[in-house]
Amino acid sequence: MVDSGMFHVVIVGAGFGGLECTRALRGAPVRITLIDRRNHHLFQPLLYQVATTSLATSEIAWPVRHLLRRRKEVTTLLGTVTGVDVAKKRVLLEDGGSLAYDALVLATGARHAYFGHDEWEPFAPGLKTLEDATTIRRRILSAFELAEREDDPARRQALLTLVIIGGGPTGVELAGTIAELARETLVGEFRRIDTRQARVVLIEAGDRLLPNFRPTLSAYAKAALEKLGVTVELGSAVTGCDGEGVVFGDRRLHARTIIWAAGVAASPAAEWLGAPADRAGRVIVEPDLTVPGRPEIFVIGDTAYAERQDGRPVPGIAPAAKQEGWHVADTIRRRLAGDATPHPFRYRHDGDLATIGKRAAVIDFGRFSLTGWIAWWVWGIAHIYFLIGLRNRLAVSLSWLWIYVTGQRSARLITQGEKAEDKNPGVR
Amino acid sequence: MVDSGMFHVVIVGAGFGGLECTRALRGAPVRITLIDRRNHHLFQPLLYQVATTSLATSEIAWPVRHLLRRRKEVTTLLGTVTGVDVAKKRVLLEDGGSLAYDALVLATGARHAYFGHDEWEPFAPGLKTLEDATTIRRRILSAFELAEREDDPARRQALLTLVIIGGGPTGVELAGTIAELARETLVGEFRRIDTRQARVVLIEAGDRLLPNFRPTLSAYAKAALEKLGVTVELGSAVTGCDGEGVVFGDRRLHARTIIWAAGVAASPAAEWLGAPADRAGRVIVEPDLTVPGRPEIFVIGDTAYAERQDGRPVPGIAPAAKQEGWHVADTIRRRLAGDATPHPFRYRHDGDLATIGKRAAVIDFGRFSLTGWIAWWVWGIAHIYFLIGLRNRLAVSLSWLWIYVTGQRSARLITQGEKAEDKNPGVR
Repeated sequence: MVDSGMFHVVIVGAGFGGLECTRALRGAPVRITLIDRRNHHLFQPLLYQVATTSLATSEIAWPVRHLLRRRKEVTTLLGTVTGVDVAKKRVLLEDGGSLAYDALVLATGARHAYFGHDEWEPFAPGLKTLEDATTIRRRILSAFELAEREDDPARRQALLTLVIIGGGPTGVELAGTIAELARETLVGEFRRIDTRQARVVLIEAGDRLLPNFRPTLSAYAKAALEKLGVTVELGSAVTGCDGEGVVFGDRRLHARTIIWAAGVAASPAAEWLGAPADRAGRVIVEPDLTVPGRPEIFVIGDTAYAERQDGRPVPGIAPAAKQEGWHVADTIRRRLAGDATPHPFRYRHDGDLATIGKRAAVIDFGRFSLTGWIAWWVWGIAHIYFLIGLRNRLAVSLSWLWIYVTGQRSARLITQGEKAEDKNPGVR
Repeated sequence: MVDSGMFHVVIVGAGFGGLECTRALRGAPVRITLIDRRNHHLFQPLLYQVATTSLATSEIAWPVRHLLRRRKEVTTLLGTVTGVDVAKKRVLLEDGGSLAYDALVLATGARHAYFGHDEWEPFAPGLKTLEDATTIRRRILSAFELAEREDDPARRQALLTLVIIGGGPTGVELAGTIAELARETLVGEFRRIDTRQARVVLIEAGDRLLPNFRPTLSAYAKAALEKLGVTVELGSAVTGCDGEGVVFGDRRLHARTIIWAAGVAASPAAEWLGAPADRAGRVIVEPDLTVPGRPEIFVIGDTAYAERQDGRPVPGIAPAAKQEGWHVADTIRRRLAGDATPHPFRYRHDGDLATIGKRAAVIDFGRFSLTGWIAWWVWGIAHIYFLIGLRNRLAVSLSWLWIYVTGQRSARLITQGEKAEDKNPGVR
């Protein structure tokens, strides 16, 4: 990259935090390099809908450089960061190159984590990327296909048992949609199995679902899931995952499809910086979101551990990452205008949302809450609104309208098989 | 499978031929098992639009068992056929099972072929499956991304050179759309390269493009492609493909992206049957589409070599496969009604179509032809019509309308990297 002499902000990660920071720097006297190892920004709140065949991959992902095409001072770089030379103020890239920065914003996100049991991953994939979503979609759909071919009743039951580990919003949303898939979308299409007999089991170690919501909403979500046919198992930590199923509490459940929605670990940004981190690997940032002793380095989003005014941690959700991105842009602007005073980040919590299938949702606004179909519509309209671009709003609206009216989901594809399966139909 | 005693038709392959045969058997006194190794029927004529970011994968693929859900006499089986026991009249499956048939229809399609140069495949992927399409999409988009990062001018030029081998409809359609991608969709989004400088080269060994069309249309297509900036190289057979580029005639062209659209080979159905085959591996069938000496076995679509009334081969296109599927269903019906006379298949050629970008097409109806934007609209409306289901018609119409009006394509995703790339953004 040619150094033009202008103040250079390097932003790593084009998720909600990094993109919002880039946007909020519009018009500031800076040039920006935005680095991501993927070419697309992903709307993660709807990723579970790709995993459950409701939406197409391209409906929730947009090429980053297209979003920023009119910002001539922004260079988008598809690349992988492998470290930071803090002393020389350079970001190190996988291809051997490096990039000098005046200010660095690390917004590198998180990945699902297995609490020291990485050996569970092949059996219980998590949901963070588009490929994760198509993997889970393939496994869910394949389970029904294999069950249709299976003669042994015990093996067939294991194929028709789908387990979701983790009772946060993602786990609740996956469980509800998979139940609808089995009880509505797929009904009548198989000849030997009744998909309504599928068991969808949601396992949560804590004593209630949606621990960040008020308890009445947790109870509502549990009842609503049970109405959809989901078995909710509370207070049981999973102690084993393998090709046969899961072990939780003192029980073993035979299941061929397991989905992990139980925990995340931050990207290795803390290691790059040699900065203090919490147990999940998040960089413990100063109140102004800078790294201790490094005011030119900011860490935001799921990679940062920041605190609210009341001392509780800022949650790992999209609105928090966006607010942090905006705050960092504001700090950079202030500094360039000569104001070096650290301004603490103040998190504004707008609410927590989770859907339960296509007819109910729970929303906790703090002061009041919503449940049922009205919450679903509020959730749906909010998410359409937050989608980027008219094109995607139209496409997602059409997809949802179709599901709502017909119960049919349009992205029921088994692709990218576990083994290479790209030859002729019906042919080895 | 439980044998119910009813006449059992086993159809292998849920492409255009197999699906049409299944449909045309509606109401016949038979039970049907339709086997495919994929869970979806693929609308192959639009596959090039997935490869070139215009359409989402799920817009051109539908779950087979959903299409046939109301046909209670049809069992859809996701499975892989590995052979046929002709004497025992059983289809052999990869999982060790087998299936008895009274009539067998092999509609197992074709795969791209490299004329004895299988070592070219890693460098020049072909286009037959959804995974092929996402692979080509990834390579095209990655080439521009890598060029943006490349400092060496020669390497950058190689990255900005995209070669399509084969001047049939698929090659013409790929070349035109890739040229529009570079000259319209991507313009203004990069900071160091001008995507309009990309070279799109279409290489055809014969002396004209679209050899199945009338010569005036071949000339029109060549001129229309050149107007879009495509370099058309005629009369030069490719003699080498590697990581550096292609060798054709006595020239080497440095190119990092090569797409194969030059030849196909049939599925191994002929080997299963021990039946005579042509050079491309297609079973040489009797005039009634049965295998010589095996009146209970039919072969149709790209796996069969059948002849028109005038002795020319039936072309490997969707309408031909559908007509053959219908003919087989009709033959089975006649036989079950007591008419064992072989009825020869009569192919009705409706025309040949190919698009050149989003503003022109060529259509050869035999008696007359169409070119230009009116041909494009006829092509577009015909393809919307042949899509299955209102949902997909609406979605594809929206996608096309958007591209037509804005030039923007909505499925610009780099997914399923050559290496595993499913970790954090910007993170090793």
